Amino acid sequence: MINRLVIIGVGLIGGSLAQALKRAGYCRHITGCGRNEAHLRRAVELGVVDDWQQDIATAVRGADMVVLAVPLGAMEENLQVLAGAVDDACIITDVGSAKASVVSAARTAFGDLPENFVPGHPIAGTERSGVDASFAELFDGRRVILTPTERSSVAAVQYVTTMWQQAGAIVERMDCRHHDEILAATSHLPHMLAYVLVDALVHMDESEEIFRFAAGGFRDFTRIASSDPVMWHDICFANRDAVLLMLDRFRQHLDQLAAAIQSGDSRQIKDTFIRAKQARDGFVDQLSDPHLSTE
Amino acid sequence: MINRLVIIGVGLIGGSLAQALKRAGYCRHITGCGRNEAHLRRAVELGVVDDWQQDIATAVRGADMVVLAVPLGAMEENLQVLAGAVDDACIITDVGSAKASVVSAARTAFGDLPENFVPGHPIAGTERSGVDASFAELFDGRRVILTPTERSSVAAVQYVTTMWQQAGAIVERMDCRHHDEILAATSHLPHMLAYVLVDALVHMDESEEIFRFAAGGFRDFTRIASSDPVMWHDICFANRDAVLLMLDRFRQHLDQLAAAIQSGDSRQIKDTFIRAKQARDGFVDQLSDPHLSTE
Repeated sequence: MINRLVIIGVGLIGGSLAQALKRAGYCRHITGCGRNEAHLRRAVELGVVDDWQQDIATAVRGADMVVLAVPLGAMEENLQVLAGAVDDACIITDVGSAKASVVSAARTAFGDLPENFVPGHPIAGTERSGVDASFAELFDGRRVILTPTERSSVAAVQYVTTMWQQAGAIVERMDCRHHDEILAATSHLPHMLAYVLVDALVHMDESEEIFRFAAGGFRDFTRIASSDPVMWHDICFANRDAVLLMLDRFRQHLDQLAAAIQSGDSRQIKDTFIRAKQARDGFVDQLSDPHLSTE
Repeated sequence: MINRLVIIGVGLIGGSLAQALKRAGYCRHITGCGRNEAHLRRAVELGVVDDWQQDIATAVRGADMVVLAVPLGAMEENLQVLAGAVDDACIITDVGSAKASVVSAARTAFGDLPENFVPGHPIAGTERSGVDASFAELFDGRRVILTPTERSSVAAVQYVTTMWQQAGAIVERMDCRHHDEILAATSHLPHMLAYVLVDALVHMDESEEIFRFAAGGFRDFTRIASSDPVMWHDICFANRDAVLLMLDRFRQHLDQLAAAIQSGDSRQIKDTFIRAKQARDGFVDQLSDPHLSTE
C-alpha cells in the first residue's frame, strides 16, 4: 500500500496510473502535480487525483513515491527540482518512452544516481492524450519495462514493480540501452513512418481527394499519426541514435523492395510479403495467447 | 434485378458481393466460378452462391453480368476466356485494385474494348481473404470507383452502378490513370510500408524480443501486412509506375525527417508531426461524417 503518491504530469499515462491504483485500493492519497492549473483542477474534478499542487517541492514533501509522467523533454528540469526536494526514502520512477536519456538526466540532477530511483516505461497508450483520455484499464495485461540502474536498490525495484502489478501490468526488466533499441524498432520507427506517410500525402496536389478515397486500412495504419506531436518530438531527441539506426535499416529494406518492383523481381516481392505476413500473423496469435502475456 | 450473375473468383470480395446482392434480393441466381473446386463447394455450402462451375465458358452462357474478382495477375487470362464466350449483351466488370492494367488486358483480349465492359474497384476489404472471410456488409457505405473506358456504354455503366448501390456502396467515377495514382497513395504505399517494416524487423537479431514487446499501436499499424501476398505482389506489377513514384516521394520525406533528427532541427520535426496529426485527425472526422459519405 502506498501512503502518499505524487504524480507529476497528470495526462493519459499519469491519470490512468492514478485511476488504476485507486481501483486496486493501493493508494491512500494521490497528489497531482504539473504546470497547468486548469488540467490539475480537471483531474481532481474527474476524481483521478485527490488534490493538486503546482509546486513540486511542496508536493513531494513526505511522499512515499513520486512518478514522473511528463514529456521526455521536461524530465531533466523536473529531476533537478526533485533532487533538492524529495526525502531520501522516497521512491522515484518515471514513465518515459526512452530510458537512457532519463538515466543520464537523473545522474546530472542528483550528482550520482540515487538508490531509490527506478526508471520505467509502460508499453501502453492510445493516440489520445490528456487526463480526459485516461482510464483505469489502460495497463491491464500490458507490459511495463523497468530499467533499474546499477545503483537502484532491490527494495526500490520491488516497490515500483508492485505498484505496476497493482495497476494491472506485467512487469519486466531490461538494460536501458537495450530497451531503447527494442522500442526504436517496435514503437518509434512505426510512429515516424505514420507521421511521414500522412505528411507526404498532405504535400501532394491531390491531397484532398486522397484522403477522401482512403478507407479503413488507412485509418488503422495512420492511427498513431494522431499521437501527441510534442511527445514524439521529444523521443526523436531522447532516443536519437537508435531511431536514426532504425530509420536507416528500414530505408535499406524499402530500397530493396523498390528495386525489386523496378526490375520486376517477382520472387523477391512475393517472398518479402509472405515473410512479413507470416511474422505479423504469428505476432497477433502471440498477443492473443494468454499464456504468453504473463511474465 | 439481375437474372443470372456469374462471379469469377469467390473470395473475400467476390463472396461478399454475392452475399450483399442476396441480402438486397437483387439477383435471381448467382454462379460461382474459379479454379479451386473445394473453395467453390465451400461457397455453395455457406450459401454465398447458388451453384458453381469450373469452366468459365459454360458458366457465362446466358449470364446477364460477369464480375471478375480474381487477382490482378489472373485478369488477362480470364478476359481472354470471356472474350470467346460471353454473349454481346452480357455486362462485364471487375474489382481489381489497379485499373489501367485491366483496361489494357481487356483491349488485348477483346481486340477492342467492348461497350459492355465497365472496370471497377470497391474501396473495401479486410486483411483476411477467402470465401470464409466474406460477409454481406463489407460494402455498406464504402466507395466503389468505376473507371468507364471511352467505349463503355451509358447503359452498362448504369447497370454496374446499380449493382454496387444494391450491394450498399456509394459509386463514384474516375479516369483509370487517376484512380491508379490516388490508390497508389492511399492504399498501395501504406501496404508496402507495412510489409517492409515487418520484414525489416524479422531480419533483426532481436526479432523475437521485438515482437514480444510490440503493443496495440503496432498491431494496428501492421494489420495490412497480414493481407494476401499474391494480391499485393500482383499490384506491384499492375500499378508499377505509380507505386514506384509514391515510394520515391515517401523516401524523400523520410530522408528529410532523418536529416532533421540527425541535425536536431526541433522546429522541422515538430512541424512535420503537427501537420500530420492535423491531417489525420481531419481525415477521421471526415470518415465519421455521414454527410460526406454520400456521393
